[in-house]
Amino acid sequence: MPPIYLDNNATTRTDPEVVAAMLPFFGETFGNASSTHAFGAGVATAVKAARGEVKALVGAASDAEIVFTSGGTESDNAAILSALAADPGRDEIVTSAVEHPAVLALLAHLEKTRGTRVTVVGVDRSGRIDIAAYKAALGPRTALATVMWANNETGTIFPVADLAALAHEAGALFHTDAVQAAGRVRIDVASATVDMLSLSGHKFHAPKGVGALYVRKGVPYAPLIRGGRQERGRRAGTENVPGIVGLGRAAALATMRMAAELPRITSLRDRLEAGILATVPAVEVLGDVASRLPGTLAFAFDGLDSEAILFNLEKEGIAASSGSACASGSMEPSHVLKAMAVPPTALEGAIRLCLSRETTDAEIDRVLAVLPPIVRSLQEASPFWQERHGAEAGLPA
Amino acid sequence: MPPIYLDNNATTRTDPEVVAAMLPFFGETFGNASSTHAFGAGVATAVKAARGEVKALVGAASDAEIVFTSGGTESDNAAILSALAADPGRDEIVTSAVEHPAVLALLAHLEKTRGTRVTVVGVDRSGRIDIAAYKAALGPRTALATVMWANNETGTIFPVADLAALAHEAGALFHTDAVQAAGRVRIDVASATVDMLSLSGHKFHAPKGVGALYVRKGVPYAPLIRGGRQERGRRAGTENVPGIVGLGRAAALATMRMAAELPRITSLRDRLEAGILATVPAVEVLGDVASRLPGTLAFAFDGLDSEAILFNLEKEGIAASSGSACASGSMEPSHVLKAMAVPPTALEGAIRLCLSRETTDAEIDRVLAVLPPIVRSLQEASPFWQERHGAEAGLPA
Repeated sequence: MPPIYLDNNATTRTDPEVVAAMLPFFGETFGNASSTHAFGAGVATAVKAARGEVKALVGAASDAEIVFTSGGTESDNAAILSALAADPGRDEIVTSAVEHPAVLALLAHLEKTRGTRVTVVGVDRSGRIDIAAYKAALGPRTALATVMWANNETGTIFPVADLAALAHEAGALFHTDAVQAAGRVRIDVASATVDMLSLSGHKFHAPKGVGALYVRKGVPYAPLIRGGRQERGRRAGTENVPGIVGLGRAAALATMRMAAELPRITSLRDRLEAGILATVPAVEVLGDVASRLPGTLAFAFDGLDSEAILFNLEKEGIAASSGSACASGSMEPSHVLKAMAVPPTALEGAIRLCLSRETTDAEIDRVLAVLPPIVRSLQEASPFWQERHGAEAGLPA
Repeated sequence: MPPIYLDNNATTRTDPEVVAAMLPFFGETFGNASSTHAFGAGVATAVKAARGEVKALVGAASDAEIVFTSGGTESDNAAILSALAADPGRDEIVTSAVEHPAVLALLAHLEKTRGTRVTVVGVDRSGRIDIAAYKAALGPRTALATVMWANNETGTIFPVADLAALAHEAGALFHTDAVQAAGRVRIDVASATVDMLSLSGHKFHAPKGVGALYVRKGVPYAPLIRGGRQERGRRAGTENVPGIVGLGRAAALATMRMAAELPRITSLRDRLEAGILATVPAVEVLGDVASRLPGTLAFAFDGLDSEAILFNLEKEGIAASSGSACASGSMEPSHVLKAMAVPPTALEGAIRLCLSRETTDAEIDRVLAVLPPIVRSLQEASPFWQERHGAEAGLPA
């Protein structure tokens, strides 16, 4: 039985069509995009086409608004540092407690080394941002508000259009880390009026090592990486042509397939969720079930150890994770679930099942056949769990 | 007749063996290197192996000294900014006039925005750095001296070991942009005692979009890109696994083939040089012919227009360039040749023929059959040229 991959918020398989699109740019059309001879000419055309596909994916108005980068983390760093350089009278940043480390680690560093005032807005038990606190944090010194489009651990989707409007009312720029949203749900920078948006190829079946930053026309921009004049002077360095071509192709595939895949993935996820809730006691779905990425399903199995669940799933050929890949192995509890005030006994039993457009009905059947018995058997084997939940589950005490 | 590629200092073809090594990491072993399940496990092993190959290529002492980046420009930027963050008492930088824009553009920005004092040391007519001026520029406030291992436009190799020793005598760190040298000539960071070294995959048959920064153990390091804990906290962002695997494979191939390829490429280059010097009047070889990259050959055809030469070569299926790809299309004269005080009439007729290990004897034969007649016919058709050189060339006035 082939293994089942349900860790698509960590990374996705590069689509075979994407790999096929990239291949000629390694060994055939391999010139430098800046070169004027024949080896470079087809390259510039391909990069331009890819830029158009990414523009279309996010609803940008112009090719010039798309800056190719090495990925989501670089895009996030570039957006934040650029916003701080834009106006010396504005030196504060507003963000949420559940951002990716690509945002939070940089902000912590700026706080420490530059004295940048960073206001971290909390979330509720469902992972929803505290809008009143967010609004109160914005002020005349706010350079940037940066709030993710969707959370990597729970899938919770944030009201980006509202958050952007509030930031603009305060005269601040608005950036969103859309790494988990781009290519998965519809994104429209025009109606959401975000000023900058980060995306990463490998979250939607493009390769690792390539991403983009959308920068709205007219928004001041200071490059993170300086040198040659690539990307209209916004991101120096020889263009990662195969990666960019792959990103463009993945963007085109996502745009083309979204209408069909959104309901299909949502329905698979909902079936998985319902099947587990119906068969397993003492389980909680994490995140905002009313506003969630279609493929993300986060559970807390109170009183269990997520590593034990994952180990048993792995033995059955099912790959999932306990939190963000960036923190895996660190053994530190998720900052996202802590911010949501998930109790420690639930937090330690949290796992994340993340689907993609490659996930099949049969795979969900298999997970539904395998996961509930694993959880039940861990529950039955745990005196701690029985003490906490045995009575409600009707188990012998 | 297949086209001939002599623009290998701009970029190289990705080796088919490198592409083959990368392929499984797109669609099969595609997990996130930070993930602990089976999809991630083979990935971490492959990244570790690649790190070992890059370590061996540059002669590093330990895997921990190699930080994977998105390329040479990012590595250069990271090294410079890190050195400035290391010691608040040292805030000055010493560099050469012929560095890549990845160094010079960042330094110009720092000079303008932070008031960083930057001393740019000149070069002589052969592109050799003025050692006395370099030594005089180093002082108790010098944070970093950054001088390239070899120049991209002329191939001139710099005395990096001596320059590093002088920097260390002044208590400064030493960084070298080895983007044109790594994978082409032997590099040994142990004997050269450099503190940081930048390299880029696509200059030695790895793909674009991946590079590395060597950071000697014990040298303080501040990351350019912050977020997750990848690369031991030195470079955040999901690892570009296929790119890193490709870089490792290319490093291994370069290490393996260098002993055979160094003399072969040198001999091809020397034959090309001798053939042109013997048949074309009023031509000058640019750079330090006593200390040059084996595959780089830069000529100045005094009184001609390089674009006309390149256009005619291109019609014959030969791709070369007039300067660095990063400046191509900018129509600005090369800062490298200007720093060498190449006279304007020679500078405008400068072209660069850059070989690689893929260059064949037959290709050199073909260039020798094609280039001299092109140059001679442009010379004969130019009244300006005839006025300057007609008599010495024995042409009718």
